[in-house]
Parts: sequence; C-alpha cells; structure tokens
Amino acid sequence: MLNNTIPTRMIATSGHQDPAMVLHRVHHQILRSHHLFEPMSDEQLDELLADSQLLNLDKGDILFLQGEPAHSFFFVISGAVKVYRLTPDGQEKVFEVIGERQTFAEAMMLMDTPNYVASAQALGPVQLYRFSNTTYMRLLQSNSRLTFALLGKLCIRLHQRINEIETLSLKNATHRVVRYLLTQLARSDSDELELPMARQLIAGHLSIQPETFSRIIRRLIDEEIITQHARVICILDRQRLEQFE
Amino acid sequence: MLNNTIPTRMIATSGHQDPAMVLHRVHHQILRSHHLFEPMSDEQLDELLADSQLLNLDKGDILFLQGEPAHSFFFVISGAVKVYRLTPDGQEKVFEVIGERQTFAEAMMLMDTPNYVASAQALGPVQLYRFSNTTYMRLLQSNSRLTFALLGKLCIRLHQRINEIETLSLKNATHRVVRYLLTQLARSDSDELELPMARQLIAGHLSIQPETFSRIIRRLIDEEIITQHARVICILDRQRLEQFE
Repeated sequence: MLNNTIPTRMIATSGHQDPAMVLHRVHHQILRSHHLFEPMSDEQLDELLADSQLLNLDKGDILFLQGEPAHSFFFVISGAVKVYRLTPDGQEKVFEVIGERQTFAEAMMLMDTPNYVASAQALGPVQLYRFSNTTYMRLLQSNSRLTFALLGKLCIRLHQRINEIETLSLKNATHRVVRYLLTQLARSDSDELELPMARQLIAGHLSIQPETFSRIIRRLIDEEIITQHARVICILDRQRLEQFE
Repeated sequence: MLNNTIPTRMIATSGHQDPAMVLHRVHHQILRSHHLFEPMSDEQLDELLADSQLLNLDKGDILFLQGEPAHSFFFVISGAVKVYRLTPDGQEKVFEVIGERQTFAEAMMLMDTPNYVASAQALGPVQLYRFSNTTYMRLLQSNSRLTFALLGKLCIRLHQRINEIETLSLKNATHRVVRYLLTQLARSDSDELELPMARQLIAGHLSIQPETFSRIIRRLIDEEIITQHARVICILDRQRLEQFE
C-alpha cells in the first residue's frame, strides 16, 4: 500500500555535504514551523526523527483506517490527505483536508485514544512524516518544561487564529454590505439609492449583526465613499466602493 | 483602580437556593465552554475558583501594566478588554481585543514568563474572573492526565479554527469573484460580459489564487447561474448570482 519508505535514521547518519543531510536540515526547519515541534530542542527533534519514517504515497493510498490501533501521527510535507469516516449507510463524510505543513492524528495521541476514530487517504501524490506516538509522548512526559512550552505555543496560536477569523468575518460582512449597495444601485438610475427597509432588517437579510452593518456604513462615510441622509445613500466614489474591503 | 471585588470563596460556601450559588453554577458552565477549563473535573474547577476573584471594571480601568509581575490570567464574562503595548515613541499598539468567554495572559503563565509583556484595559463595563497562575499550574503539574487532555483539546480547537479560516477564505474569494462579475456586467448592456484579461491576471487583481478563481467559476456553471464560452460569460440567473456565497 505504501511505497518508498525512507527510514529517517539513514538520513540522520549521512555525511556533511550529503544531499540527504541537506534534506534533513531543510525538514528540521519545516517541522519547526509547526507548533508541535517548535518548542523542541535540536536533540529532542533528532530523537523524534530517528523513530520516524518519510513516506511517499500515491493518490488513493490509505494511510490508516478507522478502528485500527493508533500508534502514529503525521506531518504533511507536500500534497494533501483526506480525513474521513464512513456513515452506517456507507456514505463518506470528509472531516478535514490536511494540507502542507499540517499535522493530523496528534489530538488522539494526546488524549490517549487507542484506535483511530477516522480513516486517512492520499488525495494525490503525498510526502509525509510518520511519527511514533510512544516517542513523542516519552519526550513530553520526561520533560514538563517542553510540555508547558507546547501548551503556551498552542494558546498563542489559538489567539492568532481567533484574530484571523475576526478579520475575515469583518471582511466578509464588508463584502456583503458593498455588494448589497451595488445591487440596490443597479436598480436605480442615479448615484442615489433609498434603503428599502430598516437597518436591522437589512442586516438580518445579509446575516450580519446590525452593529456591524452600521460600523461598515460609518467607515464608508468616513472614507468619503458614500453619504447618508436618513434612508437615502448617495454614492460619491463608485470605483472605490467596488474595491472596498 | 478596581471596584466590587467579590471573593469567589464567599459564593462557593453559600446555601443551596442562594442566588450566589445559582450564579456559581452558571459560571461553572460558562467556564467549561472554554478549552482551558473544559477538561477539568468539578473538584479541580472548584479548587481553581476558590482562589479566584470575580471583578467588575469600569471603562478605562487598567487591569495590569506591561512589566508588572504576572501572577494571574483572566476570563471575560461580559464586556471587552484591550491588550496593548506602548511603542518607544508613546504610540499605543493594540494586539488584541478580548471578548466574552475568552481568556488572556494564560500563554504567559504556561510559558513561565515572569512579567506581563503587554497592558490590559477595560473598553467599557467588564465583568471577569481573575485566576491564580500558581493554583492553575499546581493543578496541571500534579495531574499529567489533565495536562495531556488539555493539550489534546487545544489541538482539536486549532484544527477547528483552521477549518473555519479556510471556509471564510473561500467565502471571501467567492464574494470577490461575484462582485467582480457584477461590476463588469454593470458596464455591459446585456447579460453577457467578456473577461477583459486572462484568468491569472483577474485572479491576481482580486488577490486570490488562479485555481480558486477557476473553482468558483466552475461552481457557478455547475449551479446553472452562468455559462462560459472562452472569455465570454453569460449570466443565466442574476438574482442568484447576487446572493451566491
């Protein structure tokens, strides 16, 4: 099922200018970009890599099946892996598509789940690392400093992601309001349009909070893209409105 | 600086039908919705709450200043808190606005940072819990099962957030493509428009990947909202296009 397994131990013991050694160093750097490996020392990362395999999968290769004993977690170097379950009536439900520089099945290791709760299949050619749960957990359990550094990193990443989500949500809301104004405008002959209903109703129609709607209108007025008098909105700069985020 | 400090110990020792006891139970539930408290047993959460304070802040109240010893982390019950730093030339740089049911300063505790690296100020009336770093860390250090359960929860939350970001990014890209088609259409007299440049250039202009652009156009064709022949796009259902996500 899996082909081209390169034991990482072979890479780690090669000479200084050896291409395998260069690859090893590049992979060290790539791994460090991920929160699970970022707080590790070089020695700890080497210890983990010595018990890992670099696998090359073809499209359709199955990495593990739901219910199999969970001994490993994975880090994708290139390509994409689908994590899915089969429903009782045989339908496939995709939970997640794991892309480059992402891990999967690590939460099961940390929560001590004995068997994989889903299956994983290559969506195309994939190169990935398979890591030993036992080795990773031994490193954490023998080093509480590493464990707490990892907890801290995870909290920081979560804060960053929540911020990103807020930014994207505001962008999305802005797109909706601008698109709404443009389509209302298309129904009018001039640069003026009259909002056909109350602010709360328009916001509801656009699935955004009334406060968010008002905030975006306020920004458009502040930027001198529109003016508003009661329900009448006048477009001052249509081109900037079309491009507004 | 802070007013209305209610020691949680007082709440925890009140009688069965006591409003304070009811509040205590409600807060238990609210806390459990957050990953930092979700894996805790009732006893562990009670132990943490016994060393906590429920604080009421007014707009502008400072909770801590950059450089002060970091003894606590916080959970917002209602209102919002600004986390900021002052640059050397006295400019305020806001890192984050912490809203309801979010924590802050917990990453510093986990990473063993001795002093706050930023300042925190109430943006309006705020109610929040102040937790003791010492008590929380004692609970984790004496219970590796709790520590690893927390690590697992954090990994799951991160996967969820990354999925959310991907969904929002695709929505954003879809908004951009639809808005682009609608504005191009506004310049045409019919339901047809000719793309003025190659796919790659339009995608670049909209700050999205060419593959994402093609994927969205493909979805619009599959949904019978548009048809495409070479660079000519014909709008079949303008109303559905205006509302497409």
